Amino acid sequence: MSPISRRRLLGWTGAGAALAGVGAATGFAVGSTGGGTDAPASPGVVPFRGDHQAGIITPAQDRLHFVALDVTADDRDRLRALLQKWTTAAERMTAGAEAAPGGAVNLNPQAPPSDTGEALGLPASSLTLTFGVGASLFEKDGVDRFGLAAQRPPGLAELPSFTGDQIDPALSGGDLCIQACSDDPQVAVHAVRNLVRMGFGTTSVRWSQLGFGRTSSTSTEQATPRNLFGFKDGTRNLKAEDSAALEQQLWVQPGDGPAWLEGGSYLVSRRIRMHIEIWDRTSLAEQEVIIGRTKGEGAPLGAAAEFDPIDFGATGPDGQPRIPADAHIRLASAESLGGTKILRRGYNFVDGSDGQGHLDAGLFFLAFMRDPQAQFVPMQRALAKSDVMMEYIEHTSSAVFACPAGLGEGDYWGRSLLEP
Amino acid sequence: MSPISRRRLLGWTGAGAALAGVGAATGFAVGSTGGGTDAPASPGVVPFRGDHQAGIITPAQDRLHFVALDVTADDRDRLRALLQKWTTAAERMTAGAEAAPGGAVNLNPQAPPSDTGEALGLPASSLTLTFGVGASLFEKDGVDRFGLAAQRPPGLAELPSFTGDQIDPALSGGDLCIQACSDDPQVAVHAVRNLVRMGFGTTSVRWSQLGFGRTSSTSTEQATPRNLFGFKDGTRNLKAEDSAALEQQLWVQPGDGPAWLEGGSYLVSRRIRMHIEIWDRTSLAEQEVIIGRTKGEGAPLGAAAEFDPIDFGATGPDGQPRIPADAHIRLASAESLGGTKILRRGYNFVDGSDGQGHLDAGLFFLAFMRDPQAQFVPMQRALAKSDVMMEYIEHTSSAVFACPAGLGEGDYWGRSLLEP
Repeated sequence: MSPISRRRLLGWTGAGAALAGVGAATGFAVGSTGGGTDAPASPGVVPFRGDHQAGIITPAQDRLHFVALDVTADDRDRLRALLQKWTTAAERMTAGAEAAPGGAVNLNPQAPPSDTGEALGLPASSLTLTFGVGASLFEKDGVDRFGLAAQRPPGLAELPSFTGDQIDPALSGGDLCIQACSDDPQVAVHAVRNLVRMGFGTTSVRWSQLGFGRTSSTSTEQATPRNLFGFKDGTRNLKAEDSAALEQQLWVQPGDGPAWLEGGSYLVSRRIRMHIEIWDRTSLAEQEVIIGRTKGEGAPLGAAAEFDPIDFGATGPDGQPRIPADAHIRLASAESLGGTKILRRGYNFVDGSDGQGHLDAGLFFLAFMRDPQAQFVPMQRALAKSDVMMEYIEHTSSAVFACPAGLGEGDYWGRSLLEP
Repeated sequence: MSPISRRRLLGWTGAGAALAGVGAATGFAVGSTGGGTDAPASPGVVPFRGDHQAGIITPAQDRLHFVALDVTADDRDRLRALLQKWTTAAERMTAGAEAAPGGAVNLNPQAPPSDTGEALGLPASSLTLTFGVGASLFEKDGVDRFGLAAQRPPGLAELPSFTGDQIDPALSGGDLCIQACSDDPQVAVHAVRNLVRMGFGTTSVRWSQLGFGRTSSTSTEQATPRNLFGFKDGTRNLKAEDSAALEQQLWVQPGDGPAWLEGGSYLVSRRIRMHIEIWDRTSLAEQEVIIGRTKGEGAPLGAAAEFDPIDFGATGPDGQPRIPADAHIRLASAESLGGTKILRRGYNFVDGSDGQGHLDAGLFFLAFMRDPQAQFVPMQRALAKSDVMMEYIEHTSSAVFACPAGLGEGDYWGRSLLEP
């Protein structure tokens, strides 16, 4: 854990302390990087500004609070004012400070505290806040509410309905999204809650999802975690260290669409309920054949170690492919999908129980990519059609957001879109 | 984090490794203590057996998965067999091992794995599993299903309805409960999931609750955490170090009721939804007056530091009490309640959003005590009647469980009840 706490950072001494100008005085703004892979400026602090938004190739933190919001105001200036306010607060919080100068103990006790307080004393905890916009921000029910319809990027087309989808529209989509990742869930929840609070009167929460365990690595320095099927997940994930692949598969390039999204990325979210009770009654051999890897080591079937190259052509003594034709890792592989990869950044969840004697558990799939139509859609079509794993899962929520590039000094979330 | 991982503990080398007898060979059973306050036998391992169950006075871990189950079988022998199986698995998992020998990679690949696998490679993470039984186990709809009606302890009487309660019966009560606490949510979820799985055909999940941040300390060595109102919570909590008070207020004593519960404790759970959006619009001064403490330091109003003694008789310059008559800390104080204290062990939660633009957030109140009728009921009556905080909260789930004493060698959960 970082030794830098909100309290120490602010030199905060309790109610009534003179806190005016504390934001400026403590220098919480930290150095910029290319997106979070360099060593952070302070322990536990991920730089907020840079070429790309943090929280994409940043080594995946352990905990998530994701929120989708709708804009309830119809006024572009109000939206812009909120995005500016959000940006200032987000930068402060990722540095371990309160949401606003003065913190939970403002100078006027007759006013509500400017920070809700539950993260006081907690370190920055690698908090990242990643911002995106959904298709409905550009046009909703045929109305161009904010004069942005012409700026809608092609990747924000609606996803097709996939075989077996059980999507709940109330838990899908949204005008805006904020992904909060941290090593401390209280820090992630605090950040979302304070941003939601600032949005009162301009935005309202559409849906929100907590995740307790990351299911992918985004850096070669991270061990591969396990999903709730008990398997290592994301072994072949796109990684921060593969710069060439990131340009090709992750970051939106000049010419891909409107200029405001260049250097950004698309985020696809899918809440995947896992029927873990049924999975748990499946034999080990069947589980491994469905995935295409061993459960323990995570090695491709027929190989010995997790990162051994996969020989999709190899056959066993029976003449059948070692990795079955419908194995998950084959269907989702770059080899089967014309070279396509995505950067997965999902989380395990348990949302209580389902009222029918089972845990409501699964994987909240989050993936970043350059083009959802060319990358996610063919992959999900192949999986929905042939993946035996589909018998054990159910997609219950779906959304696509466009996440702009990183922020330069003085920038705010969405500036490239609102002030092109 | 502990260096002892499931993998290392078991010397587990991947699929096909000879794992027979691993449980016996690795000596995962650790030494007993009086309930978890002594130094653990291995880093990150809280001893499972002892005079009292672990997870009560054990220093509160950071994460929670709580599950209430109903017994679907009507057969006492099946119930006993499950409790024996659960105990073996629980002891293994708290020591950092898989739920059953053979783990996720059993010797027979045609059988389902005996452990679901998602905690492979993770350390024990201070996991504790605490077991309790509800009133409905003794009698349900007038039926004494397991021949236990005469053994029902007096503290398992139904709680009265309190002013403002919005209790959902489907999310309340339960024949059995298991409280899993850990410093790693994946470890807590893994434990509950594997126990639920073993119960298939004998029990089913009634309701379940995750908590991400502890809201109380149970040891003088822990800092006081903050709840989602942003205040330090549980400053005056009953602490593990106060042995005399534990006997008086926490542990069921001889003569309190049937002998099987001696040395145990009652657990009261209340899911308390907090209307954080409304709270966040309340002035700092009002928040502090409602609680009776300063928000920053957590000092009693009129005092300087968190642990300063509270002078409930002190008046301010205006002649009014410094701590208002209806302040939360006064109403809930031992001074107002004839000396009564309880051991709080609750957690913050966010369960997504409420469909009306707000986060579904709050505090999952868990408290252990010697007698719910004499301790929780008067306290909650006073709070429900006079606490201004009630305007900002809503109790949506309620349960009481009786948690037996700790296990000696060879004991299993519930033995004192089933084999008196």
